[in-house]
Amino acid sequence: MLDRERVIRRMEAVLGPEGVISEREKLRTYECDGLASYRVIPSLVVLPETAEQVQRVVRICNEEGVPFVARGSGTGLSGGALPVEEGVLIVMSRMRRILEVDIPNQRVVVEPGVINLWVTEEVADAGYYYAPDPSSQLVCSIGGNVAENSGGAHCLKYGFTTNHVTGLEVVLPDGQMVHLGGKAPDTPGYDLVGAFVGSEGTLGIATKITLRIVRKPEAVRTLLAAFNSPDEAGGAVSGIIAAGIVPAAVEMMDSLSIEAVERGVRPGYPKGAGAILIVELDGPEAEVEHQFEQVERICRENDSFEIRIAQNDEERALMWKGRKAAFAAMGHMSPDYYVQDSVIPRTALPEVLRRMAELSAEYGLRVANVFHAGDGNLHPLVLYDEEKEGEAERAEELAGEILTLCLEHGGSITGEHGVGEDKKKHMPKMFTEDDLNVMQLLRCAFDPHYLCNPGKVFPTPRLCGEVPGPRRELHPVQKAGLAEIF
Amino acid sequence: MLDRERVIRRMEAVLGPEGVISEREKLRTYECDGLASYRVIPSLVVLPETAEQVQRVVRICNEEGVPFVARGSGTGLSGGALPVEEGVLIVMSRMRRILEVDIPNQRVVVEPGVINLWVTEEVADAGYYYAPDPSSQLVCSIGGNVAENSGGAHCLKYGFTTNHVTGLEVVLPDGQMVHLGGKAPDTPGYDLVGAFVGSEGTLGIATKITLRIVRKPEAVRTLLAAFNSPDEAGGAVSGIIAAGIVPAAVEMMDSLSIEAVERGVRPGYPKGAGAILIVELDGPEAEVEHQFEQVERICRENDSFEIRIAQNDEERALMWKGRKAAFAAMGHMSPDYYVQDSVIPRTALPEVLRRMAELSAEYGLRVANVFHAGDGNLHPLVLYDEEKEGEAERAEELAGEILTLCLEHGGSITGEHGVGEDKKKHMPKMFTEDDLNVMQLLRCAFDPHYLCNPGKVFPTPRLCGEVPGPRRELHPVQKAGLAEIF
Repeated sequence: MLDRERVIRRMEAVLGPEGVISEREKLRTYECDGLASYRVIPSLVVLPETAEQVQRVVRICNEEGVPFVARGSGTGLSGGALPVEEGVLIVMSRMRRILEVDIPNQRVVVEPGVINLWVTEEVADAGYYYAPDPSSQLVCSIGGNVAENSGGAHCLKYGFTTNHVTGLEVVLPDGQMVHLGGKAPDTPGYDLVGAFVGSEGTLGIATKITLRIVRKPEAVRTLLAAFNSPDEAGGAVSGIIAAGIVPAAVEMMDSLSIEAVERGVRPGYPKGAGAILIVELDGPEAEVEHQFEQVERICRENDSFEIRIAQNDEERALMWKGRKAAFAAMGHMSPDYYVQDSVIPRTALPEVLRRMAELSAEYGLRVANVFHAGDGNLHPLVLYDEEKEGEAERAEELAGEILTLCLEHGGSITGEHGVGEDKKKHMPKMFTEDDLNVMQLLRCAFDPHYLCNPGKVFPTPRLCGEVPGPRRELHPVQKAGLAEIF
Repeated sequence: MLDRERVIRRMEAVLGPEGVISEREKLRTYECDGLASYRVIPSLVVLPETAEQVQRVVRICNEEGVPFVARGSGTGLSGGALPVEEGVLIVMSRMRRILEVDIPNQRVVVEPGVINLWVTEEVADAGYYYAPDPSSQLVCSIGGNVAENSGGAHCLKYGFTTNHVTGLEVVLPDGQMVHLGGKAPDTPGYDLVGAFVGSEGTLGIATKITLRIVRKPEAVRTLLAAFNSPDEAGGAVSGIIAAGIVPAAVEMMDSLSIEAVERGVRPGYPKGAGAILIVELDGPEAEVEHQFEQVERICRENDSFEIRIAQNDEERALMWKGRKAAFAAMGHMSPDYYVQDSVIPRTALPEVLRRMAELSAEYGLRVANVFHAGDGNLHPLVLYDEEKEGEAERAEELAGEILTLCLEHGGSITGEHGVGEDKKKHMPKMFTEDDLNVMQLLRCAFDPHYLCNPGKVFPTPRLCGEVPGPRRELHPVQKAGLAEIF
């Protein structure tokens, strides 16, 4: 059993008293991440300031048999940083140094607590930026982005976090420190960088991250097109992609989302729109000019009734402000909402949107749609009121039906928010037991004692057979749901 | 000990007599891959035609405790498909079906024996192509490309094989079949597709591969610029990249390489050049036109004395013919050569090329350079004559010095040819023991009995601690070089 007092003493010896939080009221701050529907108060929160401290913290956890969870800024939307009861939450927000800026080789080396947008700010004067841009980029951390393989509006053209991380320093679940990858784009041996990015905190804790930065495009042009319905907007998206154009971003918002952001941040979108598209092109001036005209024409051909073109950075920022604030603004429409996240083949968009509207009517719950239309990454927001008897349950059920609908159309249970706590029950809808087991081979190899963010990602956690070292009694969290030992 | 007769009988029961090769003379065909300096005659060659047969073959190997190696077309340059003595070589060349072409979702599903270029041929009429283009693309197989994470001239802009594989059906080293990834670009759970691509045949055998295809660009323009020296050509490369242009390809050939291909395929390159660059731009017409002018100007500013622009597909093909035939043509210059493969930061190119010329003089051995200049992926060819006493050894030593030189400049021991048999001794120059051990955690998880392409990639193979199932005596190949068991 966990000797809490002893663990506190040992952690304080490493981090000092200011690096350890143990009062229950203060611990409550950390009971959930961006997905507030799951809440667990951890036994202890620790705040290391160096990689060496992380290593020592993890070693103590190993010696004491205490599970641990790493947390960045806590903006994740799948409960990936949900604490474990009787476990230690390792908060990385004090590790916020930008360690190296290497412009000639287009690399920046950061600590995991560094905020996403800081990277771009650091290299902007040299003409570069960091491409992955989650809506939370003002506050989310690079470490969290690595854990969840975060995307963003511009991932259509530029790819996810995994395409922008070339090297990692990692503290493994047993406290050993290793280096994966490096500055080069493809290092010899297994691509463990790729396997680690998106592993949702289950394979260890990144303490140093080498990022690829991208040259700022010569030109960026943004337009906002208003349509009477999502169908017409969807037609425009298909037309743009079919024309062979790869926009930097193609975002769609439906009327509910537009209403929400107008009540919230007031971007002044066209009145009466059933759907709007934000289309951004970037690249060499000559290319952008030429393709921008094509995009305008395609929008008009699909009955856009108003097209606005950003004339300067301020106007462009205003167009994006509404989109980026959409989730937060949903509070103006409904006391509660549940964000779904799924990717479907672009070709299935019209059919899925239509069926989703029918499901919304059947359940008597509103569903707002604001999403990365270009890559088919839907974010339906199911609106509900927790105060109303049974509505939360109905909302969850509807969200589940939407997910099933997406899967039926060849989709995926998550596009960019991760599996975490929330989606693990859906994993068997996408993968066979054998496929899930082979993933857990990797987990077992890295975390044989099942201490590192246990209970996430996999619906049926498995322990590896015999692991070296003394056999120890399983933690209750480890036992729960542990169907089989192999 | 291997009961060869029994294994032959069992394999024939699965594959029929025509699917098993056991006569020593016929086995000799398979004694090496494209790196002929290592040769091992396998005990047996099998030629499965279906994934199920692969599975049964691997299961027999497991039951008999026989190591096995998968081989595609055998064009690899690091000895990754080198057979194992007393082992089974599984040749995938009969699995050559293109299983599915899904143009709307930009995916093609193939069997591993499908030739690289066939994929492009299959989708060309629909306006698409398969981007990774190793020089051997006429003959190399997709399965081999997956094993080695193959690159090519156009990887500067389009990325390596790993960026173009989204899903895999894999027979694991124990004969179990699993599915990794899918058609979607990022599936939930660990990115085992990324870990498998480039694992050089050590984690299992891919039996079905889902590839991403890319839309053919609106315009492609190619120029060939001749310079007096590699220094000036290098200056032009730096200038192009510094201007923010990302060409589809930037290839450099020095005078020795030019001489070789002129004796071979006669592309008619400009006379008297100390170096030539082939620069290809692709993309929307407007962009390509604009940037092409910039490239021309930059080449002239760096003292190019002749610039030729391909006026049609034939002229373009001729420019590329010389480049793609360069390795093969080296036979006209020297009875033997050794291809080195390293990536260095682009900024180190001039210094590394100069020092390489000095080393060449010191060793009295010619070094030809033909390489992907845009991404700093060098391919120095060390020319030697095996008949001359000690020259082969000196050549290998020089190649080693060149590798060390690259590493000193922040480079990598391999760019795109893989580690295989040839480079494993150099792995400790890039990775600490801990870093190599963490890679082998993955290997142990997938291949606990160390049967799947044993002896490759890692200088010091390690066995996992206790593995499930009956403990069996180690195969001689497993014992050799097995320093430690953990």
